[in-house]
Amino acid sequence: MKPLSATPRTSLGRYPERSTADRAALYEILDAGLICHLGIVVDGTPRVVPTCYGRLGDTLYVHGSTGASSMMTAPSQEICVTVTHLDGIVLARSLFHHSINYRSAMIYGVPSLVPDEGKSDALRVITEQLAPGQWDAARQPTRKELAGVAVLALPLDEASVKVRQGPPGDEDEDYALPVWAGVLPVRQAFGAPVPDPALRPGISVPPHLAAR
Amino acid sequence: MKPLSATPRTSLGRYPERSTADRAALYEILDAGLICHLGIVVDGTPRVVPTCYGRLGDTLYVHGSTGASSMMTAPSQEICVTVTHLDGIVLARSLFHHSINYRSAMIYGVPSLVPDEGKSDALRVITEQLAPGQWDAARQPTRKELAGVAVLALPLDEASVKVRQGPPGDEDEDYALPVWAGVLPVRQAFGAPVPDPALRPGISVPPHLAAR
Repeated sequence: MKPLSATPRTSLGRYPERSTADRAALYEILDAGLICHLGIVVDGTPRVVPTCYGRLGDTLYVHGSTGASSMMTAPSQEICVTVTHLDGIVLARSLFHHSINYRSAMIYGVPSLVPDEGKSDALRVITEQLAPGQWDAARQPTRKELAGVAVLALPLDEASVKVRQGPPGDEDEDYALPVWAGVLPVRQAFGAPVPDPALRPGISVPPHLAAR
Repeated sequence: MKPLSATPRTSLGRYPERSTADRAALYEILDAGLICHLGIVVDGTPRVVPTCYGRLGDTLYVHGSTGASSMMTAPSQEICVTVTHLDGIVLARSLFHHSINYRSAMIYGVPSLVPDEGKSDALRVITEQLAPGQWDAARQPTRKELAGVAVLALPLDEASVKVRQGPPGDEDEDYALPVWAGVLPVRQAFGAPVPDPALRPGISVPPHLAAR
């Protein structure tokens, strides 16, 4: 696989050991996520919007509504999409070395609006990211419904991938302190599916949802 | 409590029922979070950086390093800080009505750099957000360590608070479909604390960390 483009903004000045240009690492972070934070500039100021996304090959699809100004102005300018996994709280002996364990990907690029004929495929990618197996289980979108959805396609070319894992790193002299140090793991967990109160009787949770 | 300022960018055009100007709702969302996504404009393009934060009263503190250009350019311009809780995947009978349950806060404002004499108090707020009880348990920062940390203070005045909870909303005619519908709950969970391999023998996990 082609490595990611190295640009000044994706090359870390601090903690360069936390950075990677490995495309496989980028894909792993993206594929494990459920939502992203989409950064756009509106009237000169930044806006950070949580939204759904999906990846197919070297394209990231980001979901929105044609009624959202953020989506409709995005194709004419550069955006930044960030996906973050918080993996742990790093508790050091000194407050200064407290940190978090995380995996994050910041992707930069000028997106294109997915044309009508490509929207269904792009939405399938986004739906399957959120709930694998769900695309074939639910009613397909109508042409009118598709018209109300905006999907951005962003090439996965320029990205900053950062990973911090493992125990704290303290100052040499602090290892003697009588302070507990280590990591408090954090993870995303799924609960048992909660049926819609309006669900028709006799419809059980499908295996692709029960398994998570 | 003073309600949040209503501005065009914090007034939702779509789904206005998901929006609130309630300051208590904002505080609840912020106080329940562990990380935020900081949006800044660098050379005209957006950058979305995951980082730690904390709230005290009507001020949000955001943590960074004096070596990070994002932190040092921020005080001269408007930023956007977003905190998002993903609470569930909303599975509808139609793909079009798939959604997520979430609570999010987008805060806009021009931050100030916390001066040296205020840094320790601000860092306490950020540390206690991440690990309550930890500030008094670990070694305090030295003057030199404080000098290497940048903290932004952002007034909590203009914010867009959005909440979506509950079952899917389908088209009337779709309720007859034999498709399971409901919510797959998502939550953030803590694992058991993992000691640093270099931890001195005989130091047990303190109660404020064991309890989470």
